Amino acid sequence: MLDEPSAEILELLEEKKYADVKLRFSELYPVDIADIFDDIEDADIMLRLFRLIPKDIAADAFAYMDNDTQERIIDGINDVELSQIINDMFLDDCVDLVEELPANVIKRVMRTASSNNRRAINQFLSYPENSAGSIMTNEYVYLHADMVAVEALSVIRKTAIDKETIDYCYVTTRDNRLEGVVSLRTLVLSEPETPIAELMNANLITVNTTADQEDIALLFSKYDMLALPVVDQENRLVGIITIDDAVDVIQDENTEDFERMAGVAPSDDQYLKTPVWKLARNRIVWLMILMSSAMCTEGLINSFQSAFANNLILVAFIPMLTGTGGNSGSQASTMIIRGMALDEIHWKDFFVVWWKEIRVAFLCGVSLAAVNFARIVLLYPSEPKRIVVALVVSLALILTVILAKSMGCILPMIAKKIKLDPAIMAAPLITTITDACSILIYFTIARVLLGIA
Amino acid sequence: MLDEPSAEILELLEEKKYADVKLRFSELYPVDIADIFDDIEDADIMLRLFRLIPKDIAADAFAYMDNDTQERIIDGINDVELSQIINDMFLDDCVDLVEELPANVIKRVMRTASSNNRRAINQFLSYPENSAGSIMTNEYVYLHADMVAVEALSVIRKTAIDKETIDYCYVTTRDNRLEGVVSLRTLVLSEPETPIAELMNANLITVNTTADQEDIALLFSKYDMLALPVVDQENRLVGIITIDDAVDVIQDENTEDFERMAGVAPSDDQYLKTPVWKLARNRIVWLMILMSSAMCTEGLINSFQSAFANNLILVAFIPMLTGTGGNSGSQASTMIIRGMALDEIHWKDFFVVWWKEIRVAFLCGVSLAAVNFARIVLLYPSEPKRIVVALVVSLALILTVILAKSMGCILPMIAKKIKLDPAIMAAPLITTITDACSILIYFTIARVLLGIA
Repeated sequence: MLDEPSAEILELLEEKKYADVKLRFSELYPVDIADIFDDIEDADIMLRLFRLIPKDIAADAFAYMDNDTQERIIDGINDVELSQIINDMFLDDCVDLVEELPANVIKRVMRTASSNNRRAINQFLSYPENSAGSIMTNEYVYLHADMVAVEALSVIRKTAIDKETIDYCYVTTRDNRLEGVVSLRTLVLSEPETPIAELMNANLITVNTTADQEDIALLFSKYDMLALPVVDQENRLVGIITIDDAVDVIQDENTEDFERMAGVAPSDDQYLKTPVWKLARNRIVWLMILMSSAMCTEGLINSFQSAFANNLILVAFIPMLTGTGGNSGSQASTMIIRGMALDEIHWKDFFVVWWKEIRVAFLCGVSLAAVNFARIVLLYPSEPKRIVVALVVSLALILTVILAKSMGCILPMIAKKIKLDPAIMAAPLITTITDACSILIYFTIARVLLGIA
Repeated sequence: MLDEPSAEILELLEEKKYADVKLRFSELYPVDIADIFDDIEDADIMLRLFRLIPKDIAADAFAYMDNDTQERIIDGINDVELSQIINDMFLDDCVDLVEELPANVIKRVMRTASSNNRRAINQFLSYPENSAGSIMTNEYVYLHADMVAVEALSVIRKTAIDKETIDYCYVTTRDNRLEGVVSLRTLVLSEPETPIAELMNANLITVNTTADQEDIALLFSKYDMLALPVVDQENRLVGIITIDDAVDVIQDENTEDFERMAGVAPSDDQYLKTPVWKLARNRIVWLMILMSSAMCTEGLINSFQSAFANNLILVAFIPMLTGTGGNSGSQASTMIIRGMALDEIHWKDFFVVWWKEIRVAFLCGVSLAAVNFARIVLLYPSEPKRIVVALVVSLALILTVILAKSMGCILPMIAKKIKLDPAIMAAPLITTITDACSILIYFTIARVLLGIA
C-alpha cells in the first residue's frame, strides 16, 4: 500500500525540483495521482503540476480525477494539450467525461478530439444512461475465424497498443457479426498453426446495447467474466464492457440501493463533496412524504382517544409496538430486496417467500410477546388491570410482527413486478405503513379486551 | 443469455440419451450446470447426471454448486471419482469446499486429495476467515528477473495448464521474494530478447495474508486490478487473489452491510435455502434488544403522564415525531456508513461531517416544521390551544431532526473508530435512540409552553 505522497510532491514543486516531481509521478499509480489533484485548491499549482505528469500516464490519471478537477484542468490548458489528453484517453473514460461536463466545455473538448474520436463519442453518447452502450468501450482486438494462432498473435502485436484489453479477442465475420471469443492465454498456449475457428469459444454470453447495467453486473459476478461483448440487434459487435467498469457498476448500484432504502434520493456525488443544500434536497422529499403519511396514524390515535383516555398506561407502549413493527418489517424487506438484487428471489417465489415470512414472523412475534407479557406484569405491579394490558400489548405485538413481515416481503416483490425499484419499499415506507396498522390493531384489541366503547 | 436447459437435460436422461446429455453439458457454462444440480431433489438422478458431465468441466461445475449439493454428490461417488474432482479443482475452491463440509466428509476429501493438495489445503485452512489468506490461490505463474521474454513465454507454455490465471505473472527471487509483476500482454507485445527485469512493474501493490477481505475489495475497485499478490511477513509470495473472488467479496460484504443495517445477523446462506428457524434466529436477537431499549421511551412517557393527561391531542403526534426522527437519523447513518465502506469518509472528517449534518438537519427540520405548523393549525380548528400545540410539535421536530442526524453521523464513526462494524449503528438502533430523545424533547417543550407542572 502507498503512503500519502501529496505533501512530498507539493514540496518538490515549491523547490522547483521538476525532474524529481516527474520521477515521483512515474512511480505512482494513475488513480493515486488523481487523488493528489482532487485535493489541490490552487488552480495555478494544479496546472503546473499537471504539466509534470509523464505523458504516458497523464491521460490515465486525468480519467480518474473528479469532474470538477477535470473541468478546472481543461479550463487551464491550451487546445494542443487538451487534444493530446482527449485522444490518449480510453473511449469509455472520454464518454464519461463528456457526459458530466457543462455544454461550453464539451464544445471545446469535441473540437480538439480527432474526427474518429468525435464520431465515436457522439455515437456512444446516444445510448441511454445506465445501459450497456453507455459503459462499453470500442477499443478491443478483433480477429477472424480463418486466421491461425500465430497470425492472430501478430495482429495483436500490431494493433494492441491502443486497446483497453487484449486478454480476450473477439472473432467476427467480415461484416462484423460476432462469432466467438478467444483468450490471449489460449493463443499463447496453442500450437502456432491451429486455426482460430478451433480455438475460439463460440458459446458466447453477449448483451444488447440497451441492456441494463445492473443485469450486466450480475452476469459478470455469476460467470466470473473479465469482459463482455456488446452487440446490436443484428448481432454485430459494437463494443465490450470490461470487468473494472462492471466493478464500478456493482458499487454504484449497491450505493443506490442503500440510499433508496434509507429514503434518500440517489446521487452519484461523494458525500464530502456534495453541498449541504443538495444533501438536504435529496432527503427532504421522502421526509415530507413520510411525515404526511404519518398523519394516518395521527388520525387513528385521535379516533381512539376515548379508548386510552381512562387507560393512559396504553400510551406508553405505542413506541415499543410501532418500533418493533417497523424493525420486523424492515428486516423482511431488506432480505427480499437484497435477494432480488442478487437474482436469488423471483416473482414465481411469491407465495413461498410470503409463507416463509409468516412462519418467521410467528416465531419472532410469539417470543417477543412472551417476554413482553412477563415484563409488563412484573414491572407494573401497581396497575390493577396489568394482566389484561399485558395481554393486549402481547397480542397486538404478534399480529403487528406478522403484518409487518408480510408487508416487508409483499411490497418489494410487487414493486419489482410493476417495474419500480424494489428498494423504495424499504424501512422508511414499511415503517410508516406498519405504524398505522399497529395502532389500529392495538386499540382495536384494547377496546375489546378492556371493554371500552 | 441462456435458456433454462434443466428440463431438456432431465428429459434426455429419462430417455437414456446419454451422449446427448454429455453434448448438452459441454455447451453449458459450469455455473449453469451447477444451477441445474442445485434444483435436483432425487439423489439417484443427481449422481447419474453428475457422471455425464464431461471430465474437463466437472470439477469446475462442482465448485459452483451449493454446499448441500456438493455434500450429496460426495456421499454418492466413490473415492476414485472424488479424488479426481478434488485434484482437478482450483485450490481456492477446494478450500472453500472443505471449510463448509461436516467433519466426517472432510476426512474423506482429505484422504482422496493428493499429498501436495492436502498440504496446501491444510495450510490455507489455517488463515483466519475473511482474510487474504482465506481467499487466495497458490496457482499462479512465477518467473525470474533474469529471464528474457521468450524464455518467460516458454515457461508459461509449460506450466500454465494448472494455473488459475496467467494474465499476470509474478517475478520472484530464487528464495521466493516478490520483485515485480509482468502481464502476459506485455510479454506478448515485447521483443523476444528483452529481459523480464526491464518489462516488469516493480512498483507493486501487495497485501499481507492477514489483510481483511473488505480492504482487499476496495483495492481492486480503486486500482482496477485483475489480480493482487499476497505476501507473508518476509515479503515472500504465498498466493494471489483474482478479480472473480474479489467481486464475490464485494457482493458478500455489501449483503452483510444490508443485513446488519436492518438488524439481521449476517448469514452466507441464500434466503430461499435458509430454514425458517434459522431466519427467525438471525432476526430475533436484534428485535429483543431493540424492544428492550424501547422500554426507556416507555418509562419517559409514563413519567410525562401528567403532561399529556389533560392534553390528549399531544399523544397523536408521537408517531409522526418519532417516525421523522428515525427516518432523519437513518438517512444520515446510511450515507455515513456507505461513505466509510467506500473509503470516502474517514475519522479525520469527523467534525466536517458533523457540521454538515447539523446544517442539513437544520434545513430539513425547519422545512418540515413549517409545513407541520401550518397543517396542525388548519386541521385542528376546534382545538383551543392549537397554536401553542403546533408550536410545541414544530419546535420538537426541528430539535429531533438535528439530534437524529447528529446521532446518525456520530455513532457510526465512533463505532468504526473503536473497531466495531459501523453498520450496526444503522436505522434500527438510531431509531430506538432517537425515539427516546424525541419524546424527552417533545414533552419538555410541551411542559414549558403549555405550562404543565
